[in-house]
Amino acid sequence: MNTSAQDSAPSDSATRPYMVESTVGGADRVPLWFMRQAGRSLPEYKRAREGTTMLESCLMPDLAAEITMQPVRRYGVDAAIFFSDIVVPLYAAGVGVDIKPGIGPVMDAPIRSLEAVRALPVLEAEQIDPVAKAVSKVRGELDDSVSLIGFAGAPFTLASYLVEGGPSRNHEHTKALMYSEPEVWDELMSSLASMTTHFLKAQIAAGADAIQLFDSWVGALDRADFERFVAPYSREVLSTPEIAAVPRTYFGVGTGELLSSISQLGVSTVGVDWRVPLDVAQTRVEGGKVLQGNLDPALLLADPDVLTAKVSEILDAGQRAINAGATGHVFNLGHGVLPDTNPDALARVVDTVHAFRSSRAY
Amino acid sequence: MNTSAQDSAPSDSATRPYMVESTVGGADRVPLWFMRQAGRSLPEYKRAREGTTMLESCLMPDLAAEITMQPVRRYGVDAAIFFSDIVVPLYAAGVGVDIKPGIGPVMDAPIRSLEAVRALPVLEAEQIDPVAKAVSKVRGELDDSVSLIGFAGAPFTLASYLVEGGPSRNHEHTKALMYSEPEVWDELMSSLASMTTHFLKAQIAAGADAIQLFDSWVGALDRADFERFVAPYSREVLSTPEIAAVPRTYFGVGTGELLSSISQLGVSTVGVDWRVPLDVAQTRVEGGKVLQGNLDPALLLADPDVLTAKVSEILDAGQRAINAGATGHVFNLGHGVLPDTNPDALARVVDTVHAFRSSRAY
Repeated sequence: MNTSAQDSAPSDSATRPYMVESTVGGADRVPLWFMRQAGRSLPEYKRAREGTTMLESCLMPDLAAEITMQPVRRYGVDAAIFFSDIVVPLYAAGVGVDIKPGIGPVMDAPIRSLEAVRALPVLEAEQIDPVAKAVSKVRGELDDSVSLIGFAGAPFTLASYLVEGGPSRNHEHTKALMYSEPEVWDELMSSLASMTTHFLKAQIAAGADAIQLFDSWVGALDRADFERFVAPYSREVLSTPEIAAVPRTYFGVGTGELLSSISQLGVSTVGVDWRVPLDVAQTRVEGGKVLQGNLDPALLLADPDVLTAKVSEILDAGQRAINAGATGHVFNLGHGVLPDTNPDALARVVDTVHAFRSSRAY
Repeated sequence: MNTSAQDSAPSDSATRPYMVESTVGGADRVPLWFMRQAGRSLPEYKRAREGTTMLESCLMPDLAAEITMQPVRRYGVDAAIFFSDIVVPLYAAGVGVDIKPGIGPVMDAPIRSLEAVRALPVLEAEQIDPVAKAVSKVRGELDDSVSLIGFAGAPFTLASYLVEGGPSRNHEHTKALMYSEPEVWDELMSSLASMTTHFLKAQIAAGADAIQLFDSWVGALDRADFERFVAPYSREVLSTPEIAAVPRTYFGVGTGELLSSISQLGVSTVGVDWRVPLDVAQTRVEGGKVLQGNLDPALLLADPDVLTAKVSEILDAGQRAINAGATGHVFNLGHGVLPDTNPDALARVVDTVHAFRSSRAY
């Protein structure tokens, strides 16, 4: 793929240490960022977004860059995550989709047939020029010590939105298609893997130092189905040379049964939700991975002392995971920041995590 | 507690074998029933419910009995599950709650303070007389070979509806209350444990042969929080002598990390959702338990041959669990029947399961 971003802003990530390198090789600091750190919990975000829809704002380079920078300025986190949405590549490619407040992404028409799959547009480089421009702008503004993580939805979660037509509790149409029409499923997932690959490559070419694949809803599957119907496509994305060249994190909610499989997708970091303590997660993943997580975002609504105690527990579990072979711990939430979160609670977490001193002799 | 049901229909469950006894001691048949087998997937249910709200219908003895019987007649399942809803005891006690179609239970006002908890009414025996009458009627109509399972929501899931004010994806207010005001939480859970106990005792007194506690949303918690904030109250319900005298099943969705704890609550049967294969579940539970589950209800929307193959896999996994020490396998879904399910798919599952021959020498 050839995007203008490749010409305009070649990545110099090779010269910058990725944040997690600070936790390996004896360094003593646990880096952190927060999933959905940019967004509705920040008053400066609400002001910046006024008069613009979510999807419009993702394709306005200056605005997307500003929103990406806001939590870095406010919290001093160790990474920026590029402000986007899982359906942005679909929207950019011309698929009929809108994000409805309080609901989530809603498709004009669900995609459930071979014809509908084949009618999906291919994502063209120029359609995500605004994304590349925004990434490049953010990378230019960030300190070298702060990593910029590229953002994309994983093929399964994208497929679920397309097949269900919107957010779903049970993903029943997605599963019915997967089980009953595996050829249609495979073609859909191939298209989405290709789209996701282009979307990530453009961000890396524009300056992203690392990427995270959000497979938010993949925890709805058991392990056998994950291996058969999902893993090949996520692996295809992650093994693309330009993507395999940067640190790669995979995250989904409720993935306790899938952690072993996820760790074998060609990732460097495994995101863990709050249900599985990090030291337990370490017993499930392939060796030599960084673990990322895993504060329950609901804890941010609890009392400060309760929150701080839980953060400390997670830091301790992360150390036990490192002592058992994990190559690092990136502190994060176990899912995205909830809209009602008080930013002061996140600031408190940053203080607690940055005050913590990691030790291999733990 | 003294309910009219105790007088009108003393249980003779001691004289009836509970269905699961057929899988232990060398018998060769795997019994089954389906969570939410009575309900929106059945045309006869839709006809019976016409002109009546969900909560009204739960407190109309003849109608609740008829709805409970419908799937037994249609499918020939091995158990009836009493037709009710998790919020019925709240509704019967006078708490302001409605079930909104397409949404679920919605409270007039969320319960988030000590005052609100203390203002919760106590469930009086006469308020659930209609339930006792319906149970008694069903037990009178059922063959002796078919078990009648009493129904109740577990305290945590009831608490989540009360504190959130309705269904919730993240249960954040529930968790905030639990973490930040543990005394309020404990008082709320004590009240709900008492209400659940009364509700189940009335059903047992009226003729229920067994009970199932539905802790649908408890999988939102990690194991430490489950042990601290939930287990004591569920254990209180299950250790009540009248309840401890009948077979007791506990079910929640996404409970892979909790199965060990759930098996230690004083249950005889552990419900397993579809994410954890039954033989894997067996490695997590305390010895000597029956396992119940675990077909993904979304499979009922897939092609017949896919469905049948998956049912066979589950039967095989159930046998492996029995060979590893489980005292039985009750076939069921891994969550409730989805409204769009074609009843023919469920009939096909019944045929496959009943044609299967269990063997200890597997």
